[in-house]
Amino acid sequence: MKCTACKDEAILRIKRHHVAFCQRCFIKFIQKQTIQAIKKYQMFSKKEPVLLAVSGGKDSMALWSVLTDLGNQVTAIHLDLGISNFSDKSLQAVQKFAEEKNLPLVVIHVKEHLGFSLPELQKKIPRPTCSVCGLVKRYLLNHYAFHHHFSVLTTGHNLDDEAATLLGNILRWREEYLQHQSPCLPSDYPGLVKKVKPFYTLTDQEILWYVQQMKIPFCDSICPLSQKASSLDFKKALNIIEEQSFGTKHYFLFHYLEKKQSLFPEKQPKVVLNNCSSCGMPTTQERCSFCTLLETAQSKSQLCIGKDDNEL
Amino acid sequence: MKCTACKDEAILRIKRHHVAFCQRCFIKFIQKQTIQAIKKYQMFSKKEPVLLAVSGGKDSMALWSVLTDLGNQVTAIHLDLGISNFSDKSLQAVQKFAEEKNLPLVVIHVKEHLGFSLPELQKKIPRPTCSVCGLVKRYLLNHYAFHHHFSVLTTGHNLDDEAATLLGNILRWREEYLQHQSPCLPSDYPGLVKKVKPFYTLTDQEILWYVQQMKIPFCDSICPLSQKASSLDFKKALNIIEEQSFGTKHYFLFHYLEKKQSLFPEKQPKVVLNNCSSCGMPTTQERCSFCTLLETAQSKSQLCIGKDDNEL
Repeated sequence: MKCTACKDEAILRIKRHHVAFCQRCFIKFIQKQTIQAIKKYQMFSKKEPVLLAVSGGKDSMALWSVLTDLGNQVTAIHLDLGISNFSDKSLQAVQKFAEEKNLPLVVIHVKEHLGFSLPELQKKIPRPTCSVCGLVKRYLLNHYAFHHHFSVLTTGHNLDDEAATLLGNILRWREEYLQHQSPCLPSDYPGLVKKVKPFYTLTDQEILWYVQQMKIPFCDSICPLSQKASSLDFKKALNIIEEQSFGTKHYFLFHYLEKKQSLFPEKQPKVVLNNCSSCGMPTTQERCSFCTLLETAQSKSQLCIGKDDNEL
Repeated sequence: MKCTACKDEAILRIKRHHVAFCQRCFIKFIQKQTIQAIKKYQMFSKKEPVLLAVSGGKDSMALWSVLTDLGNQVTAIHLDLGISNFSDKSLQAVQKFAEEKNLPLVVIHVKEHLGFSLPELQKKIPRPTCSVCGLVKRYLLNHYAFHHHFSVLTTGHNLDDEAATLLGNILRWREEYLQHQSPCLPSDYPGLVKKVKPFYTLTDQEILWYVQQMKIPFCDSICPLSQKASSLDFKKALNIIEEQSFGTKHYFLFHYLEKKQSLFPEKQPKVVLNNCSSCGMPTTQERCSFCTLLETAQSKSQLCIGKDDNEL
């Protein structure tokens, strides 16, 4: 098998593009795809300070490496969720890479910041764990980016993630979400930082190959709290179809992105945002979901303390 | 576990409806669902002569039983495709049920009718097998229904089939198909018989239970020529998601059917039909796909005969 680009011996094949690459040309391919994605959606320029959310998983670690190699102004931020062994391994991978490459890294320990680790929050909030976790992460990342003057927040979401999200929204016909899913969500209200996904054209498998070839440390465990996440089922389902008919996920996502305006046109006026009465961050309600969640957790804690007191 | 309807001992549970049934109430449930589907889409009345396509599989055999028990005027038609053992088993099931219940049955042997069995056609036509088979079946069934004055042709397609078709059309964003998928396709051109699917609200599992409870003979093998059919992958994919989140297929299909006009409105004028220059049946082309297919198969046969002659 020869490399499609340089004709050297290829080490891997990307079926949906009908190409094979040697190591050097594969790294170039990953970089080129990232550059094209950034350019297509005008995600950010080389001069802009970018905040990169790194979970410690393969995708965000790979994006950290690619953006750094491409000469972008990246500051990484890691949220230590306090999910015992899983969070320890994630933090180790993130810190190891930052030290090896001498890169700026911010670590926020959620337990210290909010008074609760994710597992503690989960026990107090009657919502699916991934929904609580998503809300906390979105809030803290946007909050940090805004207050530290980053104009853009980037995540490692890839083609498989985006196709799975799209499938989930289609199966439930969530029209509002179908109108807005995008690799680039603009900042359309003060306090809401632009969100971008420069890896939306790359698959799980391609990114895994990249971190393996580049010997980038990463945490390869699945979060123990997310093992029943429906997004994993959507990915599994799409992979079954992809196996027999490669390119399905690619077409499903890319055709949607090209035709979204015509497939799912906006029918209602955009939601009106205002500032949360408690924290001042943007929200559609009087008080934002994050403040409400935190208040619920705090009030349940006080109840528990009260209960313990009575029992003494 | 108690029967939701009569409080006797239940023998099965239908999770997506949050009900459990004894045998008697389950049979009633299947009948009621069928009656409601027929009524909702005004599929046919009790007086109308209905042509029912019976493959010998569980769905069409179950529909034959239900429609007969409900007192409809049903004539069954079976296409013997000539797929060796599979077709033999299918024909046996169909004939057995017709004899046991003394029901009208038409059998068309495709090889006698067209000069080719399905496997013979498959070898001569450079198209996926299921696509050739679908075209032949649609043509022959519609042709028979029209020329024998049936105003409606019914098939056993169920909720799983329809959800799988919908998923396939969504993954490829086939807008024209997305505009038209329906449990009831009207006759909007002379020669095009109305097509209906009275089982579109019932799942594979529910219909399997029904044929088992009713001891209806059926062929439970998968067609050996369709084992790579993408529809099977779509079903598998949806079942993975359903397993963790029951009701997904139900909502996916039913919400689409309710909102189709608003989700995928017709953007272009309807295709114009005319009569095939060869057989006179409706087509969008000058000559219909069926006549073209048959001509291709015949010309390839003649070429083969010629070749053999030369070789002698």
